[in-house]
Amino acid sequence: MLSQTVEYALRAMVCLAQSPDELTPTPALASITKVPPNYLAKVLQVLAQADLIKGRRGVGGGYKLTRPANQISMFDVVDAIDTLKPIQTCPLGIEDHGESLCSLHKRLDSAVRMLIDQFEGVTLEDLISEANPSAPLCRSDKRVALGLPGKKSG
Amino acid sequence: MLSQTVEYALRAMVCLAQSPDELTPTPALASITKVPPNYLAKVLQVLAQADLIKGRRGVGGGYKLTRPANQISMFDVVDAIDTLKPIQTCPLGIEDHGESLCSLHKRLDSAVRMLIDQFEGVTLEDLISEANPSAPLCRSDKRVALGLPGKKSG
Repeated sequence: MLSQTVEYALRAMVCLAQSPDELTPTPALASITKVPPNYLAKVLQVLAQADLIKGRRGVGGGYKLTRPANQISMFDVVDAIDTLKPIQTCPLGIEDHGESLCSLHKRLDSAVRMLIDQFEGVTLEDLISEANPSAPLCRSDKRVALGLPGKKSG
Repeated sequence: MLSQTVEYALRAMVCLAQSPDELTPTPALASITKVPPNYLAKVLQVLAQADLIKGRRGVGGGYKLTRPANQISMFDVVDAIDTLKPIQTCPLGIEDHGESLCSLHKRLDSAVRMLIDQFEGVTLEDLISEANPSAPLCRSDKRVALGLPGKKSG
C-alpha cells in the first residue's frame, strides 16, 4: 500500500537531508539506506526527474537535495514515486457519474486525501530534527558521526 | 499509492457483491469493471488465494464471494493485494532502534494505521447499499438491471 519504492525513496531523501551540503555517493547511500544498489539507482533517477535531488557522475560524484530540507515534504517524495491525487471524476469513465463519485471511489478518495494531509505537513527537516531516541537510518555510530547524542545498543 | 491493482481488486469485489448468488464469468467481470482481462485474471487468483472469492472453470464458470458482502471489508480486499500492516519494528533492522521507531517510520506507521482504520470500517455491503446517485461500476442501464433506481445520463 505504501509501496517498497516509496519507503526506499523516503530513506534516500532523509539520508541526503542529513548531509545537505555534500554530494553523497550512491554506494554510500545504498549502504546507509539498506536499499539494493540497482534498485536505489532507479529510485534516484525518479527523484532527480521530479527535481527533488540533483547529481553528478564520476569521481567525487553523488546526489544532494535541490532545496533545503525544510522545503521538501514527505508528500513531495511520496508523490514523486506514486502519484497521490484526489479522485475528481469516475476512474472508470462512467459518464453519468461525472464528478459524483460512487461509494467506492468516495472511500478511496477520502483515503488519498488523508494521506496527502498526513504527508504534506511533514518536511524532511522535521524528520531529521525531531527529538526521538531513534534517528532515521542511523545506528549509534552514525548518530555520533552526525553529532547526535549517542545511545548504547542492546 | 493506492495501487492500480488495489483499485481493480475492489472493483471486482464490488461487482461480485452485486450478484452474490451466481458465478460471474471473468469476461463479464472484465467488461463491467473495465479491467484488462489478463490483469483481472491475476487479480482474481490473488483474491481466491486470500479466500475472498471462489471460482469454477469451464462453461457456466466464474467467480463468487466466499462469504456475505457484509462480512468482507475494504481492508480485507486491500490487504489481500498490498499487505497493510502497522510497522512494529525498524524496517532496516537497526538493532538499537528495536521497537522504538524513528520519526520517518512513525509517520509511515501512522499513515498505515489510518488506512487500516478507514478500510476496516467499510464492508462491501456498505459500498453497494449506500444511498448515492452513483452506484459503483454501474451505468444507468446496469442500475436498472440490478433493480436500482434509474438515472438519466447527461
